[in-house]
Amino acid sequence: MPTRIVVIGGSAAGMGAAGAAKQLDPQAQVTVFTQLSDAAYSPCGIPYVHGREIDSFDRLVLQTKDHYRKQGLDIHYETRVESIDLAKSEVVVRGSGRVSFDRLVVGTGFSYDTPDIPGTDLDGIYYVRDLRLAREWDKRLDSVKTAVVVEAQPIGVEMATALARRGIETYLVDPHPWPMAEIADPDIMAPVEESWRELGVKVHLNTAIEALSGTGKVRAVQTSQGEFPADMVVMGTKKLPNAGLARQAGIKTGATGGIIVDPRMVTSAPGVYAAGDCIEVPQGFTRIPVQGLSGSHAYAQGKVAGANAAGGSHTYRPVYVPWGLVGGNWMIGGVSFGETLADALGVPFVLGVAEGISRARYYPDFRKIRVKLLADPKTLQLIGAQLVGGEGIKERCDLLALAAKKAVTLEELAWMENVYSPAMGALNEPIALAAQNGLKRAGRA
Amino acid sequence: MPTRIVVIGGSAAGMGAAGAAKQLDPQAQVTVFTQLSDAAYSPCGIPYVHGREIDSFDRLVLQTKDHYRKQGLDIHYETRVESIDLAKSEVVVRGSGRVSFDRLVVGTGFSYDTPDIPGTDLDGIYYVRDLRLAREWDKRLDSVKTAVVVEAQPIGVEMATALARRGIETYLVDPHPWPMAEIADPDIMAPVEESWRELGVKVHLNTAIEALSGTGKVRAVQTSQGEFPADMVVMGTKKLPNAGLARQAGIKTGATGGIIVDPRMVTSAPGVYAAGDCIEVPQGFTRIPVQGLSGSHAYAQGKVAGANAAGGSHTYRPVYVPWGLVGGNWMIGGVSFGETLADALGVPFVLGVAEGISRARYYPDFRKIRVKLLADPKTLQLIGAQLVGGEGIKERCDLLALAAKKAVTLEELAWMENVYSPAMGALNEPIALAAQNGLKRAGRA
Repeated sequence: MPTRIVVIGGSAAGMGAAGAAKQLDPQAQVTVFTQLSDAAYSPCGIPYVHGREIDSFDRLVLQTKDHYRKQGLDIHYETRVESIDLAKSEVVVRGSGRVSFDRLVVGTGFSYDTPDIPGTDLDGIYYVRDLRLAREWDKRLDSVKTAVVVEAQPIGVEMATALARRGIETYLVDPHPWPMAEIADPDIMAPVEESWRELGVKVHLNTAIEALSGTGKVRAVQTSQGEFPADMVVMGTKKLPNAGLARQAGIKTGATGGIIVDPRMVTSAPGVYAAGDCIEVPQGFTRIPVQGLSGSHAYAQGKVAGANAAGGSHTYRPVYVPWGLVGGNWMIGGVSFGETLADALGVPFVLGVAEGISRARYYPDFRKIRVKLLADPKTLQLIGAQLVGGEGIKERCDLLALAAKKAVTLEELAWMENVYSPAMGALNEPIALAAQNGLKRAGRA
Repeated sequence: MPTRIVVIGGSAAGMGAAGAAKQLDPQAQVTVFTQLSDAAYSPCGIPYVHGREIDSFDRLVLQTKDHYRKQGLDIHYETRVESIDLAKSEVVVRGSGRVSFDRLVVGTGFSYDTPDIPGTDLDGIYYVRDLRLAREWDKRLDSVKTAVVVEAQPIGVEMATALARRGIETYLVDPHPWPMAEIADPDIMAPVEESWRELGVKVHLNTAIEALSGTGKVRAVQTSQGEFPADMVVMGTKKLPNAGLARQAGIKTGATGGIIVDPRMVTSAPGVYAAGDCIEVPQGFTRIPVQGLSGSHAYAQGKVAGANAAGGSHTYRPVYVPWGLVGGNWMIGGVSFGETLADALGVPFVLGVAEGISRARYYPDFRKIRVKLLADPKTLQLIGAQLVGGEGIKERCDLLALAAKKAVTLEELAWMENVYSPAMGALNEPIALAAQNGLKRAGRA
């Protein structure tokens, strides 16, 4: 008898799991239930199509349905799993009844938090995620004059930039004193804010949303700073883990609301695995559970969960969370903690800060890069980083995540070797400059 | 009495040493003798001015003479040190006689190897290094129709690209079967060769230089593949360490011809330090001595030498040598060894290779990246890398050099965390893909 593996979810975690399971055990019977109508696509690309940097939504489709069929995966689109029956090892599928499994992988993803204010049921409110919906919205954007983006969290940052590029009068409204306040430090976001002003985005910080108003369709947003006109509202609120299905089945969730898994991605229910935005995993240095990471994390977790569900024994390590995105004309990114988050979590640190450049200073296309490094005060091991710059941010965040994982110290980073070639990199690597500054501040230079 | 520190050389190593010495001991009397006529400038930028990517040589000047004067450094330009008298702790300076020192730093740099063929004394032969000479040559380039670049080593690679961009009919002649054969693997250089063809560079490999001919001024280059017309010849031959001054004083040199130093940058003569292209240092994994690294290495070595000469106790660690440069429309780079060099040195390895992309595959500006990783067959620790791509090569080489230094394994790289954001980086980091391939080839996937 082939092993029957059921996967709930058709995004990065779910498809990563399904593919890895089939790869490890080609005899396994792998069934995926997804509410989406498309095979694998990249939701992360949606803002860039709206902003006309990418010319078609078709480009976001990564695999055809046929590809998965040929892989031997049985995918049920637009299909909702209503419940999980752990006692009988079955899932209840709307319209199809009960489906048995030997192993289950839960990859149910996230939902945007819906604010508890009047008017959230009006037409014209856009939660960016679904490709089919995005295609419809993109047509509507042609007739949109004014838009309000609610909250300057990552999707709001990308959408505000995209809508402004599209020529729409865009208000970005956020209750915090600076954008992405839960993730990024104010000095990192300052160039992004400046860049938004240049693009014409109207940024309203320290501003609470009080109501959405209109007749049938949204027409305005009431805030603590007055009313803003809105032909549409992009709801870029906090991403919450979709852990309800698992929780209702008796599977344990943690402090973040995400499903708790062990390093093999097994939940509190034997034989049930989980991966992606619906779970929480320990941060590397503090072991504090974190949730809602990148598509790359979801995919990697999915691969571990799927391979283990098929009989493998992979381990998912605590995460150091390199992250990055484009805001205005800047790239921002980081690793684990910035100053703000470390302070909030009570993680002590010494700081190193430097402004460097991405290429030789006499090379025409060089861009500024600001690097902040956080290190443990006793060992001077790297525990976090924040960066803003014009290029080379992703790669530096990857380097710093590896450095944090390997317990690299400021001393080692201060003397790191770096490529120096005028058109590629400067004599002084900005990371090394920040580490040198950190050593000075720590009195160890 | 202030400590009297004498530095021979005014390039990256020498100026790094002088600055670090003065910083550590502001009372020290720091004297620099340099044959150059300019204060610190970047010789690495010269090809890019010739290629018109940088608009003026003035941009390459990094510091004014006044800057150093204010720092309290006593710099003697266009001044040759003729010998070192260790017994008396003096240097003999042409035109000024003997100068005493308490500590000496030797930063005498490199010279291009002059091939033992007829005609090397003709006018029209350009050794790229000196800024004053570069300014003169740049004017001559306007009337140059054809140029022969001798050897496709790094400076030849950059100059061939620059001259072609300048509209000059350019022949690149090299005795090896592919460009940069002593450093880079053939598959890494293949896109560069292709790109040169598009730029109109005439690449002649497996071709030996036999003579330069002309009357007073060079007019042609005779090679094993026939004669090429040449209004100028760029001599991009091997960089040899300028260790003669030290050797004549009885200071020990090593297998590469470079001055031998200990980890504190002290030569075989107590009180005499050396740094930069005139020394050799141990490679990290093999401890094989290597020589002729980047300006960034020279500068770092200079800082260690200078600080220690002033009473500090810094240590320079064995090197993992991240390197990179632009060839044609590509960036190439690596860490320590490629396949070719590892084979030549008898270093056993397992290989991992992958072609990835620099941004999401649906994002318009993404570029291909080819990554090759070499790992120790027993431990699977990273020992070398080679990369070619359109962007993000420098930063990845920096990451891989740190990884090699920290004994990171292919397993760790295969599961590395990476930033995923469409405009910044792809879901699958090319380094991780190469590591996954390596695990498969090693039978450990």
